[in-house]
Parts: sequence; structure tokens; C-alpha cells
Amino acid sequence: MLPKNRVLTPGPTALLPEAQIAQAEAAMHHRTDAFIDLFRVVRSGLKQLFKTDRDVITFASSGSGALEACVSNYIEEGDKVICVNAGKFGDRWTKMNRGYGANVVELEIEHGRAVTVDAVAKALEENPDCRAVFVQGSESSTGTVHPVRDIAELVAKRDGCLMCVDAITWVGAHEVQTDAWNLDLVACGSQKAMAMPPGLAFLSVSEKAEKMLGERKGNKRFYFDIARELKNQAKDQTAFTPAISLIAAAAASLKWILDAGVDNLVRNAGELASMSRAASAALGLELLSNAPSDSVTAVRTPGDLDSGKVVKGLKTQFGAIIANGQDALKGKIFRLAHLGNYDYIDTMGLIAALEVVLAESGLKFESGAGLKAAQAEYLKLKG
Amino acid sequence: MLPKNRVLTPGPTALLPEAQIAQAEAAMHHRTDAFIDLFRVVRSGLKQLFKTDRDVITFASSGSGALEACVSNYIEEGDKVICVNAGKFGDRWTKMNRGYGANVVELEIEHGRAVTVDAVAKALEENPDCRAVFVQGSESSTGTVHPVRDIAELVAKRDGCLMCVDAITWVGAHEVQTDAWNLDLVACGSQKAMAMPPGLAFLSVSEKAEKMLGERKGNKRFYFDIARELKNQAKDQTAFTPAISLIAAAAASLKWILDAGVDNLVRNAGELASMSRAASAALGLELLSNAPSDSVTAVRTPGDLDSGKVVKGLKTQFGAIIANGQDALKGKIFRLAHLGNYDYIDTMGLIAALEVVLAESGLKFESGAGLKAAQAEYLKLKG
Repeated sequence: MLPKNRVLTPGPTALLPEAQIAQAEAAMHHRTDAFIDLFRVVRSGLKQLFKTDRDVITFASSGSGALEACVSNYIEEGDKVICVNAGKFGDRWTKMNRGYGANVVELEIEHGRAVTVDAVAKALEENPDCRAVFVQGSESSTGTVHPVRDIAELVAKRDGCLMCVDAITWVGAHEVQTDAWNLDLVACGSQKAMAMPPGLAFLSVSEKAEKMLGERKGNKRFYFDIARELKNQAKDQTAFTPAISLIAAAAASLKWILDAGVDNLVRNAGELASMSRAASAALGLELLSNAPSDSVTAVRTPGDLDSGKVVKGLKTQFGAIIANGQDALKGKIFRLAHLGNYDYIDTMGLIAALEVVLAESGLKFESGAGLKAAQAEYLKLKG
Repeated sequence: MLPKNRVLTPGPTALLPEAQIAQAEAAMHHRTDAFIDLFRVVRSGLKQLFKTDRDVITFASSGSGALEACVSNYIEEGDKVICVNAGKFGDRWTKMNRGYGANVVELEIEHGRAVTVDAVAKALEENPDCRAVFVQGSESSTGTVHPVRDIAELVAKRDGCLMCVDAITWVGAHEVQTDAWNLDLVACGSQKAMAMPPGLAFLSVSEKAEKMLGERKGNKRFYFDIARELKNQAKDQTAFTPAISLIAAAAASLKWILDAGVDNLVRNAGELASMSRAASAALGLELLSNAPSDSVTAVRTPGDLDSGKVVKGLKTQFGAIIANGQDALKGKIFRLAHLGNYDYIDTMGLIAALEVVLAESGLKFESGAGLKAAQAEYLKLKG
């Protein structure tokens, strides 16, 4: 057979053709009315996606750039912060904060488990001088969703303490209400639910967060300066040269999302996640997470089966690229993506391929069981 | 859910991304060395696809242009021809020939059945003055493959009689050996197994066919003049302005085909067809054809179920566009495509969607039965 090459990972996710075309088509200078018009559309769309009336600024960087901005603009030597570390990306919050000299109170969570609101509440009580809480909305390394809304409720009560969310695989796959839930800094990347290539980072900045800008002068920053970008982007311009073709792709992506409806994009990921969980259960496979994310499903491989074998089998036999586990989870899990531009046909096709690879890896199950369960789940959700 | 829009028809078939990119990228004048280099690659690739050492000429037209060339260059008022009419496209041969004044001996075949070699042999014996036999390799309106190789063996023995094959959904989906099987005129279109957009027609011309050019002066032709194109294209140019962007797409498509291997492209379609036939049987559905084509599977809808309902359901619920029956078969069959850029994941995803739509249309079958049968067929073929 001649398999097609398909990127079916949790990021970069499958590209939206309209975004690819817009990206290829874009040919403009950025200090022009044409760019201003384009960027205005993007800024407006991002606000709707994030559910905020505040500005969402754009950086020409990977998502990590927006994460770093959360740290470098607010934290200096000796500042106390709480970092939820429940996986590779939680660990990144810790490392970034330590890199900027923070005194990190780290809540280390077993990989695959969500942090509890109680644990954060306790840490906040014990550290009333805490300047920020850093957490993932969805920890994509383990396919786990954290109770961000409830944590934010605690943080909102504390003056001088910011709620910073790595929402890179959370926005567009889970309900996110930036303003209503008092999320101060929400960071996102372009290559996830927006179904466009990597290269843009987005960051919403609450009133509280804006007020706290300038309180810390100890750490120098230039490129990821939130105050400068807020000022420039309010005029539909960026401080530094924007990634023009990606801005054009973002406009196309946001048009697709808003035409469909943000809530429907979220529901889409949720339904594909439910189908994938049902298929996994029917195949006798366990999930890694006790609070599974709707953006990505992390599935344990049983016994001593190396998940890399499953990933490799899908690639070589079916052209389908899915994600292995990362770091300590490498070889232990594989991850099925749902956020962005995936649909029923993608998901069923992938489960059909997965069944073949799992059976050839020695797993015992009734052929077609995963497909049948996923289909039944689809029909149940459809109602 | 947010279904993706997918063209899963037997033509236009799903586009090859490399061909789309090449098409978008092409910006050249055609009377240049750049075009000559490009067209040389296309001409060489077409010969390999058709398995011929003779020239395969390209027209800027739909496939029907190449069909018309077969008629207009060889047939004039009163010429006797044999046309196999086993469906919409067989009927086109008859109509074209009658349009050019031919005396058509029409072999009308029940739709869904292949012509027999005996029927053609008998017609040839009764009409020794027959100037050409016109047949489809694959009659895509009914998903039927005709015994072209055996018919060509009969025609090859007759001087002054040409074997003309509408190979539009045959090349690249079935084994085709233009030279070894003595196929005089083999006509193809770009939007089928080549997985590129419509707009180009291809025609191979045997030595016998080339020698017979110029014998008929009664019908005037200009655009579809085989002799003129053979002369021009031998110099890697076309007589009229070529469809430059489509020539660039053809070069990309042929690179993909030759990299994979022509025989593997054919095998791919055959295996997907086998899977689809197995799924249909498991769902209790009958095929229309007694000689099913590997390019497209025509499936009867049972009882009084309108196949248009199935087609519409797949479109509205899953974004998947498949083909209904045409003309008298409209509402009676739906057609699943296999030729070109389709793979296991496409096919399984489509069957998964089809099951949902068929069940909602009232068909009774065990949920997942089609998927299980198709998967089992895949594994059997894989060996």
C-alpha cells in the first residue's frame, strides 16, 4: 500500500488548508495599512478565542516565548512562586522560574495525575508572599487537565499574586474563560488547536497583570517585553518585525474557528477524546491520566511493550505520525491528539491502523473492538 | 463535530499535496527551456505509466478531449466501428462516434456487467470492415472492468482496425501494458489515478495508429489533431498554449507515482478495492458489477433506500463527498473510490462513517462489521 504521510500529533497538529494557503499567499510589508487590517482581525479573533476583553499579544516565537514572558516580566531574584510540576511542561515552569532566580515552591505531582485544588490552597497559605502560581491548563506530556478554574479562584483573592496558565494545549480543546475565571496570564501557541504552523505565541494580560508590570526591574528583558508589546499592539502593530505569513495563517485559522464557533471547536476535541478513550478501554488499554485531557489522550502500553514500537509501526505501515511519551514516559505511553483540525474520519482511520499495529505487537483483543467502541461513543454523544 | 471536507470520489480524486504545490508554484512562459525541461519529464513519466515506448501526447482539455481525438482523427461519415456500451462512458463512445457520422455497431451490455470477449469476437467477424473497437478499461459509472487485453488480441490481428481504450479510470488502477497488449489509442485524464486536478488529457498512439493518421480527410479537426501534436511534442512543446500549472502538477504527480512504482500504485487501488468489497459484503450490501473494477466500487443500496440519502448523509454529517450513481443508476448505487491518492486510513475512516449513515438509514447490521471485514482483508492481503 501507499500510505499518506499524516501528522496526527498533539502539536504541531494537522494543518488547516485555509491557513496553509493564507500563509503561502501573504506578501506584504508590515508597516502598511494592509498589515494593520490583517493584524486587527487576528487581535479581535484571539480575544474571542480566549474569551477576554483584554488584549492578547502576539510574539514571533514558539509558545515557550510567551511562557518566558510570564516569568521574565514579573519575577526577579528571590521572588517566591508556586509551580505545579506534573510533567514535562510543569517542569519547564520550574526550570524557567529558577533560571530567573525565583524561589520556587514546587508541587511535584506523579505524572498522570492532576494537581488538587487543596494542594495549591495549602501552598498558598504556607506562602502568602507568593508572587505567582504557574500551572498548565492541559499537561500534554501526560494528557492531564488541571483544575485551573478552581485554582484561579484562590489566586484571585490574593493581591500581588498572578495566575499564570500555560494554555498551549488547553485553549480550543477545553472551555477557557480568561476574564470570567480571573486568569491573569494565558499563554498559547499557534501549532495546537489553531491548526496552523508553529512560530507564533499568544499571551493574554489581565488588568491585574498589567498593573504589576514594571514592579520588577531586576531581570532585564527586551524581546519578550509585555509592556512594549501591549503599547504597540494596541495600534495593530508589533514592536519587532512580525512573522507576516504566520499572522496571515492565524487570520485564516481564526476565521475557521469563529465560523465554527469556539465552543464547537472545544466540543469537537472533547468528542474525539471520548471516542479515543472508549476505543482504548475496549482494546484493554489503560490511560495514563486520572484526569484525562480532551486535547490529547495518553495511553499506556501494556506489559513490556515499548510504545515506540507502536509509534514506529504506525509511521512505517500507515504513514501516521503520533506522539510517543517524552522523557521518563518515553516507551511507556503513546498519545492520540484531538485538538484542532481532527475529525471522526481521522480518528476512526487512526484507530483502525492502531488495531493492526497493536495486534502485530502481540496485544490480544477482538479485532474491530476499538472501532466498534469508538463508533458507539460517537453515536451516544450525537444523541 | 467539525468534519473536514474530503473529496473521496472516483474523479476528481483526492489531490496529491505535492501536485498542488507544484501547480501553485509554476510561473513560467511555455516557449522557454524551463518549460521544455519540465515537459520532457512529464512525457517520459507518462510513457512509464502507460508502459509504452511510443509517445503519449498531452492535451489541455478534460479526458473527453482525448476520447474525441480517437474519433475525430480516424473516423468519418459511414465508417463502421464497434462500441462497447456498458454504462455512461460506453454510451459516450457511441454518441461521439455517431456525432462524427460513424456507422456504430453497438454492443449494449446490461449496466454492471462486463462485455464478453466472445461478443466482441462475434461482432468483429460479422463486421470485417470495422475500423475501430471502442471500449472502456474501467467503466466507472458501474464500477466494471472489461477484458481489454483479450479484446485487443483480437483487434491486433486485423489490419486497419484500431483498439481504442478509454483508460481514464483504468490506468494506474489496473495493470495496463499499452505496447505489450497492442493497445492502439489509450486515453487518460489527469484527475484520476494521477491525483491531480482536471484539465489535462493524455493519449498514447501506437505505430499502427500513427500510420493510419491522414487516411480520413472527411472530418475536419484542428485542436485535437494527433499528427500535429505528435510532431510538436516530440520536441517537448505543444501546438497550442499548454496548461502550464497543470503540466507542473503532472510532473509532481508522476514523480510520486514513479518513486512509488507504477505497479505499487495499481496494487494500492486493488487492495483498497478488496477491503471495500469485503466491507460491503459484511454489511449485507451487493455490488452492482459482476466484474468489479479496482478503481471504484459501485455498491447497490438495498430495497427502496435512495443512495442519494447515503451520499448526502456522508456529506452533511462527515464532510465526505462520495459519488452517487449517474443517470439511470442515480439513487440505486453509491460509489467508493480507490484510484490515486487514497490509503488504508482514508478507507477505514470512510467505512466507519458509512456504517453510521447506513444504520441511520435503517439498514440492519452488526455495528463495526464492515470495519472488521475490511481490516481482516487488509491483513490477508498483507500476508
